[in-house]
Amino acid sequence: MIGLNYLSPKKDKPFRFIALPFYLVGILSMLILSCNPEPANESLTGEHPCLILTANSVPELQNGISDFPLLSSSFNEIKTKADRSLNEEIIVPVPRDLGGGYTHEKHKENYLSMYNAGIIYQITGEEKYAGFVKAMLLEYSKLYPTLDIHPQAKDQAPGKLFWQGLNESVWLVYSIQAYDCIYNSLSKEEKDSIENNVFRPMVNFFTIYNKTTFDKIHNHATWATAGVGMTGIVLNDTTYVEMALYGSDKSGEGGFIKQIDDLFSPDGFYAEGPYYQRYAIMPFIVFAQVLENNWKDKIDIFEYKDGVLNKAVNTLVQLSNSNGRFFPMNDAIKDKDLQTAEMIFAADIVYYNTQNKELLSIAQNHDKVMISKEGLEVARAINAGLTEELVRKSVVIRDGKNGNLGGVAILRGDFDTNQLSLVLKANSQGMGHGHFDRLSISIFENGNEILQDYGSARFLNIEQKQGGRYLPENTSWAKQTVAHNTLVINQESNFNFNLKEASEKNPRIVYYDINSPELQVASFADSNCYEGSVLTRTVAMASIKNKAYILDIFKVDRELPATYDIPVYYLGQLISTSFNYNCNTSLLKPMGVKNGYQHLWNTAHSSEINGLSSVTWLNDYRFYTCSFLADENSEVFLTRIGANDPEFNLRNEPGILFRQNKASNYRFLSLYEAHGSSNSVLELVEGTKSSLKELSFLLKNDDVNIVRIVLKDGTIATLGFSVQNDENAEHQYNIEDETFKWTGNSFMAIVE
Amino acid sequence: MIGLNYLSPKKDKPFRFIALPFYLVGILSMLILSCNPEPANESLTGEHPCLILTANSVPELQNGISDFPLLSSSFNEIKTKADRSLNEEIIVPVPRDLGGGYTHEKHKENYLSMYNAGIIYQITGEEKYAGFVKAMLLEYSKLYPTLDIHPQAKDQAPGKLFWQGLNESVWLVYSIQAYDCIYNSLSKEEKDSIENNVFRPMVNFFTIYNKTTFDKIHNHATWATAGVGMTGIVLNDTTYVEMALYGSDKSGEGGFIKQIDDLFSPDGFYAEGPYYQRYAIMPFIVFAQVLENNWKDKIDIFEYKDGVLNKAVNTLVQLSNSNGRFFPMNDAIKDKDLQTAEMIFAADIVYYNTQNKELLSIAQNHDKVMISKEGLEVARAINAGLTEELVRKSVVIRDGKNGNLGGVAILRGDFDTNQLSLVLKANSQGMGHGHFDRLSISIFENGNEILQDYGSARFLNIEQKQGGRYLPENTSWAKQTVAHNTLVINQESNFNFNLKEASEKNPRIVYYDINSPELQVASFADSNCYEGSVLTRTVAMASIKNKAYILDIFKVDRELPATYDIPVYYLGQLISTSFNYNCNTSLLKPMGVKNGYQHLWNTAHSSEINGLSSVTWLNDYRFYTCSFLADENSEVFLTRIGANDPEFNLRNEPGILFRQNKASNYRFLSLYEAHGSSNSVLELVEGTKSSLKELSFLLKNDDVNIVRIVLKDGTIATLGFSVQNDENAEHQYNIEDETFKWTGNSFMAIVE
Repeated sequence: MIGLNYLSPKKDKPFRFIALPFYLVGILSMLILSCNPEPANESLTGEHPCLILTANSVPELQNGISDFPLLSSSFNEIKTKADRSLNEEIIVPVPRDLGGGYTHEKHKENYLSMYNAGIIYQITGEEKYAGFVKAMLLEYSKLYPTLDIHPQAKDQAPGKLFWQGLNESVWLVYSIQAYDCIYNSLSKEEKDSIENNVFRPMVNFFTIYNKTTFDKIHNHATWATAGVGMTGIVLNDTTYVEMALYGSDKSGEGGFIKQIDDLFSPDGFYAEGPYYQRYAIMPFIVFAQVLENNWKDKIDIFEYKDGVLNKAVNTLVQLSNSNGRFFPMNDAIKDKDLQTAEMIFAADIVYYNTQNKELLSIAQNHDKVMISKEGLEVARAINAGLTEELVRKSVVIRDGKNGNLGGVAILRGDFDTNQLSLVLKANSQGMGHGHFDRLSISIFENGNEILQDYGSARFLNIEQKQGGRYLPENTSWAKQTVAHNTLVINQESNFNFNLKEASEKNPRIVYYDINSPELQVASFADSNCYEGSVLTRTVAMASIKNKAYILDIFKVDRELPATYDIPVYYLGQLISTSFNYNCNTSLLKPMGVKNGYQHLWNTAHSSEINGLSSVTWLNDYRFYTCSFLADENSEVFLTRIGANDPEFNLRNEPGILFRQNKASNYRFLSLYEAHGSSNSVLELVEGTKSSLKELSFLLKNDDVNIVRIVLKDGTIATLGFSVQNDENAEHQYNIEDETFKWTGNSFMAIVE
Repeated sequence: MIGLNYLSPKKDKPFRFIALPFYLVGILSMLILSCNPEPANESLTGEHPCLILTANSVPELQNGISDFPLLSSSFNEIKTKADRSLNEEIIVPVPRDLGGGYTHEKHKENYLSMYNAGIIYQITGEEKYAGFVKAMLLEYSKLYPTLDIHPQAKDQAPGKLFWQGLNESVWLVYSIQAYDCIYNSLSKEEKDSIENNVFRPMVNFFTIYNKTTFDKIHNHATWATAGVGMTGIVLNDTTYVEMALYGSDKSGEGGFIKQIDDLFSPDGFYAEGPYYQRYAIMPFIVFAQVLENNWKDKIDIFEYKDGVLNKAVNTLVQLSNSNGRFFPMNDAIKDKDLQTAEMIFAADIVYYNTQNKELLSIAQNHDKVMISKEGLEVARAINAGLTEELVRKSVVIRDGKNGNLGGVAILRGDFDTNQLSLVLKANSQGMGHGHFDRLSISIFENGNEILQDYGSARFLNIEQKQGGRYLPENTSWAKQTVAHNTLVINQESNFNFNLKEASEKNPRIVYYDINSPELQVASFADSNCYEGSVLTRTVAMASIKNKAYILDIFKVDRELPATYDIPVYYLGQLISTSFNYNCNTSLLKPMGVKNGYQHLWNTAHSSEINGLSSVTWLNDYRFYTCSFLADENSEVFLTRIGANDPEFNLRNEPGILFRQNKASNYRFLSLYEAHGSSNSVLELVEGTKSSLKELSFLLKNDDVNIVRIVLKDGTIATLGFSVQNDENAEHQYNIEDETFKWTGNSFMAIVE
């Protein structure tokens, strides 16, 4: 139980400073002295506010608003919203609706209104803002005690105000900050009413009724622990803080610290993937900052686990593609990008902590900052012109609390003005929101999805789509292996779709070499997802005459013959195929009856392929070709998503499905190429066809794959890849009259 | 033959000035005096260049390049391109390929290179640019005489350099300008070689071999006549100019003047629709400017037909939606927008002619201007801050040379920050590129297509898609009535898809009233497209409590019972329906076998609808609902385009198909509403449901349709519409205990 070493509260530890710039040391020490001068109970509420916006930073913020445009506009935006709220009737409705419904959205609106008004009260000192928050909290103090479980609650962790407890936790994280802001304006009776009717019952609801969820190692629990912990700080209740940190029984088996231990890899990768990393980063970072402000004598939270919380934000930024959207792994909604509200907190606080100036470019795009000392610092830095361009680079990010559960490789290349990215996903299952997608790839160019990961089947907060819940097709389609750009054996999903098994067994990084822009390679393997099969996928981004080629070698070691399928979910319009096919023009049937195949229409089929074959499509005025080696046992299907979708919950997007029949030990070889452009405004079209002439294995054995790429202009590229990792291995092969010799895992030679 | 009045060359007319600003008078008179001092042959080539870039404007342009940033950057862009061309080998390949193929694209590149180099030669005087153009033209003078008809030619008007004569005409329009620019640098032998081997044979090819096309009243002929006429000006051959103006036999039955007469309505609408209007506007405007510069004593072309050429450009601008794309009527490619190269010429020249300052906003978006006195004037005006915002307004544009062949109504409303547009298309067939889409509608919001017109089935210049030709599905799908948002009777297309019949019979404007932003109405009718049937579609954009509602009353007068289908091609994700349906989850079949129905997959069906029914979808984070009245004879199908599409040439987009069985006289009533928003970055969703509670006819008879809209908040709107046009009619109706009284064609009363 490695985590336990970290778990014991640092009661015996003396007050200490971590390395910080001089002026921050001053601010922090003032802050700690004023808000938390001694590690004793009575100090916790010595000043209000003390959570994120702290009392001692208010004067500096007031000045900063006149000095720094970004702080000023951020303040004005919040003030405009607060003023609008003050002009409206306070409505605290009896909970009734699912996500997207009236009462759901109203309670969300309410916590944001209170949060905004609380901040504006602190900065302006105008009583009306405090009065608004007070009046609304007093309404909640009448309503909350009357509530039972939400009438639409259906899952294990219900809420009272909301159909799921998660939203209730978020309500608490915002509302406790509003309360903190107006605390000093309230009478004892008002405080008692609000605390005893809302905040304490809500904490009890989380830590007793929803105890199981509270103690989980999961993003829902992060929001809950953040809310409970922040409530403890404000209410001067160390028990709440300790439950938040160490679980409802304070054992350390649950709680915030254990979440940090188990959910983040040493590289700052969050087990559920970027979509949930983005969501969870807010309570992680915000609660950490609250601890930094109030609990630093007991835990130096931003130094904890080698500074993993700061790392997590920088890693998350790298998990976005060129248009700022997060790579849609697992249960992801694709719209989420660096502009989300969570990233404002994350970028501001982590800039404050680390002075990583690339984070300023994100803050600059947000065009708003937190109203706090962190936001002030960001606004000041941007004003001083310190912003640096965000550079997305090739990176391999290890997964697993100890970094040994596989990971994600992102190969990136800049060609002309285009950034091409290849993502190879071979990390741990990612719990309940994980997909059965071992060794799947996706490809992006300039932010466009070229080979897509479908993401989740869900319409966030849209009431008519089951209130925004995950839809049945999320399980029957989106999580299945065949919904991903990876191998499916015998038309069954990884681990027979068994979550428990999938969670226990992980892929592994074989090797990677991402340092040369000429040839970047990542090789990952999985020995568990299909019984008796070892899967090794080696992907490479090669620059040949300043053009990008993505090579994909998928090696399957397996004795028993089986059917191998590799789907390729391209996005765009099919332009041409190198082979003839039979199109199912007047009758469509699904590709199968289960494991996701029931959702794929079989739109065309070809068994006439043999040798080098290709499919070309058009996406956003750019051409893409997937070339692949076929033999007499190969078939190709063209597919479209959308069969067995009675409520039209799926996106009807196309795909190619390569099928290899009667295969045992086998290596798939494919090459992806972006080429040409179609400018229909200027009516100029060029490069509609692939530049590839020949693609072949020169050698494939237990040690090595040697691949030859011949372009139409005569250029010959030879690429070699180790099968196993050995950085120092010396390779030498004589093939016909050529000799190939290299040291290490990969090699490329180009003859023009 | 009204047109004939205009046709005779104004030989007897004295030199005259039209009203122009003082400084333009000066410039123009200089220009006419220098380039064309007397209306005699010898003057035509008195100066070179004399087409668009004129010799006398060169000094002023040279100065303007240092004074006006936009002129400067435009010059530099052309110079950069010209320099790039000069660094490359001159290749004039033997024609071989289809559109998109190498030789096709190379010949296009060549005319642009020559054109650019010619301009740069004039401005800089550097001989190398003239040398480049000369060398390339001399190559053409070797190649062209050896050529027969293009090997890939398949249609009636082939080219020699290109598979279709159209591209050859475009080649001539550009290349003759290049030749004009370098004319004075050439020896007599060089001129003879180029003229006798390229330009004259090409003119002969157009006017003799392709005579039928040359004399057509059609955009292909406009390019041809422009090219031939410009060649005549440069080569001092008035016969060429006269053939260009009055047809190959100079009778006036063909040629540029007849094209202006017949192709443009008095409102400046071009019969083929905006896509081809955009394409044709360039030769129209450019050749007109050439005539203005060289032939003004004979024709005052921009005053011709009440200034229709200038009007045509302003009308074309109004035929674009909020994102600048042209409404995709008939055979349209949807990407085309105000940024196309043609619009640079059109906006610059028409600004020069009319000083319409809204055109400057288009030029400003182009970020480039012509290198000519017109471009100079635009650059000067933009530099002086004269630009005015482009305002897209509601407009009814009449079609037909005399304005009596129906037309297009565009109702526009600005609601919050959204511009909603409804297009009702009821104009003439538009010749071979016309679609059988009488009375079809489309809806746009903020440039997004909400109800789409499919446009054409074609991939411009993409060689793999039949060289960019119109694909078979353009006929079998895109032109068919069922591919449009309009009525189909008995599953047959308008006029049984007979182009000749469709071209002879036209719809008509019944009435329109677009002056009140509260209620805008357009009513159009067609009595010919289905035998024995009179179709009247009345659409209204109503502002009810500052929200937009689009009402659609489709009245069919017909004695024989029939099946009425109205397809609705929404774009987006289906969110909900108010009715149950049977989804074809595991077997898809087409909706029919012909008339376009063979291309629609039947994805779901409902006969359970009766009374008020609705479908809601999501498009670009905004919700849209179509509500409609159904009865016991109503059915609804959900469809998807893409059946019987063996080469995957179609876009697989969704649709709704309303079917009314056993219908004779019948009125469809529908209401379209944009509502709410889904911001998945902020996770805020609101207004997912329609605000409509009730929709009904209070009265429908031969005189009037009175419709009642009741919103969920209790608001009651009553709208009345005449069936026939009578602006002065006094209407009074007592319905139950309410009295409705109004004068004119339409009426709305709102009770909150």
